[in-house]
Amino acid sequence: MTQLQLADLPTPVLILDRARLLANTARMRDRAASLGLSLRPHMKTAKSATVAILAHAGTKGPVTVSTLVEAAHFAAAGFRDILYAVPVAPQKLDQAAAIMRDTACDLKLITDNIAVAEAIAAAGRRLGVRFRTLIKIDCGLGRTGIAPDSPDLLPLAAALSAPGAELAGVLTHAGHSYHAHSIAEIKAIAEDERLAVVTAAGRLRAAGHACAIVSVGSTPTALHAESYAGVTEMRPGNYMFFDLFQAGVGSCRMEDIAVSVLATVVSHHPGRGHLLLDAGGLALSKDTGANEHSPGTGYGLVCRPGDAVPLPDLAVRDVHQEHGLVGRRDGGAADFLSAHPPGSRLRVLPNHSCMTAAMYDRYYVTDPAVAGGLAVVAEWDRVNGW
Amino acid sequence: MTQLQLADLPTPVLILDRARLLANTARMRDRAASLGLSLRPHMKTAKSATVAILAHAGTKGPVTVSTLVEAAHFAAAGFRDILYAVPVAPQKLDQAAAIMRDTACDLKLITDNIAVAEAIAAAGRRLGVRFRTLIKIDCGLGRTGIAPDSPDLLPLAAALSAPGAELAGVLTHAGHSYHAHSIAEIKAIAEDERLAVVTAAGRLRAAGHACAIVSVGSTPTALHAESYAGVTEMRPGNYMFFDLFQAGVGSCRMEDIAVSVLATVVSHHPGRGHLLLDAGGLALSKDTGANEHSPGTGYGLVCRPGDAVPLPDLAVRDVHQEHGLVGRRDGGAADFLSAHPPGSRLRVLPNHSCMTAAMYDRYYVTDPAVAGGLAVVAEWDRVNGW
Repeated sequence: MTQLQLADLPTPVLILDRARLLANTARMRDRAASLGLSLRPHMKTAKSATVAILAHAGTKGPVTVSTLVEAAHFAAAGFRDILYAVPVAPQKLDQAAAIMRDTACDLKLITDNIAVAEAIAAAGRRLGVRFRTLIKIDCGLGRTGIAPDSPDLLPLAAALSAPGAELAGVLTHAGHSYHAHSIAEIKAIAEDERLAVVTAAGRLRAAGHACAIVSVGSTPTALHAESYAGVTEMRPGNYMFFDLFQAGVGSCRMEDIAVSVLATVVSHHPGRGHLLLDAGGLALSKDTGANEHSPGTGYGLVCRPGDAVPLPDLAVRDVHQEHGLVGRRDGGAADFLSAHPPGSRLRVLPNHSCMTAAMYDRYYVTDPAVAGGLAVVAEWDRVNGW
Repeated sequence: MTQLQLADLPTPVLILDRARLLANTARMRDRAASLGLSLRPHMKTAKSATVAILAHAGTKGPVTVSTLVEAAHFAAAGFRDILYAVPVAPQKLDQAAAIMRDTACDLKLITDNIAVAEAIAAAGRRLGVRFRTLIKIDCGLGRTGIAPDSPDLLPLAAALSAPGAELAGVLTHAGHSYHAHSIAEIKAIAEDERLAVVTAAGRLRAAGHACAIVSVGSTPTALHAESYAGVTEMRPGNYMFFDLFQAGVGSCRMEDIAVSVLATVVSHHPGRGHLLLDAGGLALSKDTGANEHSPGTGYGLVCRPGDAVPLPDLAVRDVHQEHGLVGRRDGGAADFLSAHPPGSRLRVLPNHSCMTAAMYDRYYVTDPAVAGGLAVVAEWDRVNGW
């Protein structure tokens, strides 16, 4: 049987470069080991048990998930230590307990709300399980979590120490590191992140709570923190794939970005300075965050199909639902069209791989060492939705 | 068996109000009939054969689609007149022919590129089918299509008159009507839209081509055009559901919006002025287009679960992948929290229903006449991806 080629695939499709994935995941494993931390990768980006096993160098190690659909996927695949790191809705506790019972998995929850903490313990008693739960701490992002010195910390711990629940630790997420403008600023945010959870853990332990897990996580801080003293684990996720946003914030090089969207040129509009791709707002996502650090990135940068190095000066300048318009970043003339006739292919590097990948139910995996990166060496499923 | 209630559903889920859907679709049928036009609704928003049949008052009438996955879905459901209204990639012609052969469906294509037109005819000869193809005309949007007076028009028509192809007509899309700031401006754009295709059709007929279909389509122009003389069909799509963007541009009232996302309150952050929903950038989409006409709309407006009338002054002010932050549109104090305790539900009206709906594989259908809009009266599948 001949090997499936990228040229055989209907577009748009999601391409995953295995060599880059392996390099990115090895780098973060080494980084966690050098810091003396457990690595609990956030699988909200990859949403794939196959990728998680690669990220753990062949084992089914600890993972973080963003939905109970992901939790069920990883539990069914044999992962036993799963942290559902979005504040749990009381209505989801029955489903969480079912996953724990069906798979004997240690599924941990989070909250920062006393009413929810009480609901967790009550549901645990009703359902005959013990919900191990972490308290979410805010370290400056201002999205969710309580302050490390919040008066709510000990009442939350008390509520989570009632029968039906168990206080498993504290966690935080330094998402504001995405908006840092220098490595020095990321290092400062990483220290805030560390201090937030270490302070909260100290208060809990002083009050007699065990607080076994002290968890941090964001790709920029994970890569640049100088010390995570007192922290037990990190939860970066985007680092497996990276994207133009992470390249802009200094987390990776352009040539580390492991996912891209393969698209087909379907028309030329020389008078308007663009060519038309069959990949638009759904195939690429409408996330324009990468422009914060790299103005002119538009909805993604474009590469030839066999590699993933951006062609100079080109970007997806505008998208409609199924239309992507590729032109010069400076708005200049369409002198690039003859190199990309209708029917030819381009790869688009995504602004934000978490959002882009969520539109696809599978990865077509390539390797630059196999057929110049133009052959499909594997197909891996991913799980979406709720 | 007791009826499934909204309260039983895990969130986030997509809710479709049947009464609004029926009213919106009846209104556009009446509108098309009053203009003497055939209605070929664009199913890129709803992506559901069930919804298309309702839009056609019970029949499997003409439809427009944005992907070949949609084309296959509607062909398998018995629709016989399908227009794939994104410029076709030459590589998709085998799949298009397979759908035509397997279902005896009249699947029409579009292009505006002579090389693609020649590839269409060649593929038709190779595959033993005749690809009926429309020429895409630009009426001012500047996305794709040739100008009505373009020198490429007749060569395109000639290429599409070769064996293996057939010139089926002309079409245009006045997407720039979305950025109009008055009904008068929409009316002017609708007249440009009409003139573009009527002019192109006139040139084709003068050269001896039949040009049976003269097709226009955008929800704002379809609703406000004063005349579509010379046009044969309209292709609006968003009108079935509407959204905050369409409300802002004047296509609908807030109480016509038929889709919403049901979400659960998972925490309160009074100091930061917001509550946290379990619906974020994936569940709502990151499309912020509605803010162009309605500043402060953020990522959506929120309603109580049983109706879909926005609560005054509240919006989803920020999103992360699975987190939505609801606060006052003016950034004011979180004096609304006590009305929405953790575990309570809210509905979010979407900025752009085409993007939001694409994240879900089904509609949970409600009707205000059944259990106060809190019961699930039906579940309808939808088709996503490529």
